[in-house]
Amino acid sequence: MSNCIIALDLEGVLSPEIWISVAEQTKIDELRLTTRDIANYDELMRHRLKILSENNIKLSDIQNVIENLPLLEGAREFLDELREFCQVVILSDTFAEFAKPIMKKLGYPTLFCHNLQIKDNKIIGYKLRMQNQKQHAIEAFKSLNFKVFAAGDSYNDISMLRVADKACLFCAPNTVKKEFPGFKAVEEYGELMAEVKAFYYI
Amino acid sequence: MSNCIIALDLEGVLSPEIWISVAEQTKIDELRLTTRDIANYDELMRHRLKILSENNIKLSDIQNVIENLPLLEGAREFLDELREFCQVVILSDTFAEFAKPIMKKLGYPTLFCHNLQIKDNKIIGYKLRMQNQKQHAIEAFKSLNFKVFAAGDSYNDISMLRVADKACLFCAPNTVKKEFPGFKAVEEYGELMAEVKAFYYI
Repeated sequence: MSNCIIALDLEGVLSPEIWISVAEQTKIDELRLTTRDIANYDELMRHRLKILSENNIKLSDIQNVIENLPLLEGAREFLDELREFCQVVILSDTFAEFAKPIMKKLGYPTLFCHNLQIKDNKIIGYKLRMQNQKQHAIEAFKSLNFKVFAAGDSYNDISMLRVADKACLFCAPNTVKKEFPGFKAVEEYGELMAEVKAFYYI
Repeated sequence: MSNCIIALDLEGVLSPEIWISVAEQTKIDELRLTTRDIANYDELMRHRLKILSENNIKLSDIQNVIENLPLLEGAREFLDELREFCQVVILSDTFAEFAKPIMKKLGYPTLFCHNLQIKDNKIIGYKLRMQNQKQHAIEAFKSLNFKVFAAGDSYNDISMLRVADKACLFCAPNTVKKEFPGFKAVEEYGELMAEVKAFYYI
């Protein structure tokens, strides 16, 4: 099926989790909090920005951390192989300003994400391009007559996995796998590639 | 404006016109016909496939021609610079099977196009993913809250240029420029980059 798009989450699928890496590098444990700890995303983000501000951590500091993050092992090779035979779009709820060094390492695949509000190298806010953008992107691709395969690892991927023509969890935490047993869960790029190829070559 | 997508036509903007190159290489002048000669696209394509069949020209023959086509001078550098600061999607009415060697040379940007129907290396038909796909793609991106800049050179680009937030003609024939004087027309990648940047950095 040649008219297809493979939609991939970024963090946890191709790169490490950005906020966890920032927490590790800055040794500020509070930056480890995720939507599993503070369910409301806006509250979580405002909390993160407050901590950054209190600790005088600038955008460039975070970008330096991200610059030094290696991709997940095998991510680039997986993505390169994928892009040789089908279209790939990365759907991530991260921010373009954080993702930039990662996208460079990945060879600049197309990325749909959000943006930070920056003033003098300080992160003063953030702007979601839209709520639930991953699901809406899949629906838009389907409206353009693409067949869509989606893979992600986390709660914010579930709605896109649900609307995709085929989907699987990749390296998802056990909690997610347990809560959504309807999705096939794979742990290695080789398995994920096999799923994509089974979808593509029908 | 960071949440933006640059939509580019392929042939005439980043690569030479495929059918004209195939006509030149195979020395079959009839393959030079375009929608300017046979206005009905389906009629034109059936005519092309008939000529290929009569001359026993296989998919791999055409792919070999395309493989040896250089990109337009400066196209890769232009695209690389663009992809470093914004998202790019190539919108083309060509076929994925033809575009493949070109996409490799361009570093695999995302491509929305159509597909051929192949049997034993013979092109037996074609399948448009959808009518007027370029315009629909731009509208889909806008529905996802992207601001869209579009550039193309030909009649089949006009409807996408019309629905984009900003658009210009790139290396368009004089007939097109004359017929659509409402669009700014640029001739060099440097000028096109300046247009994109004026759009991006507002």
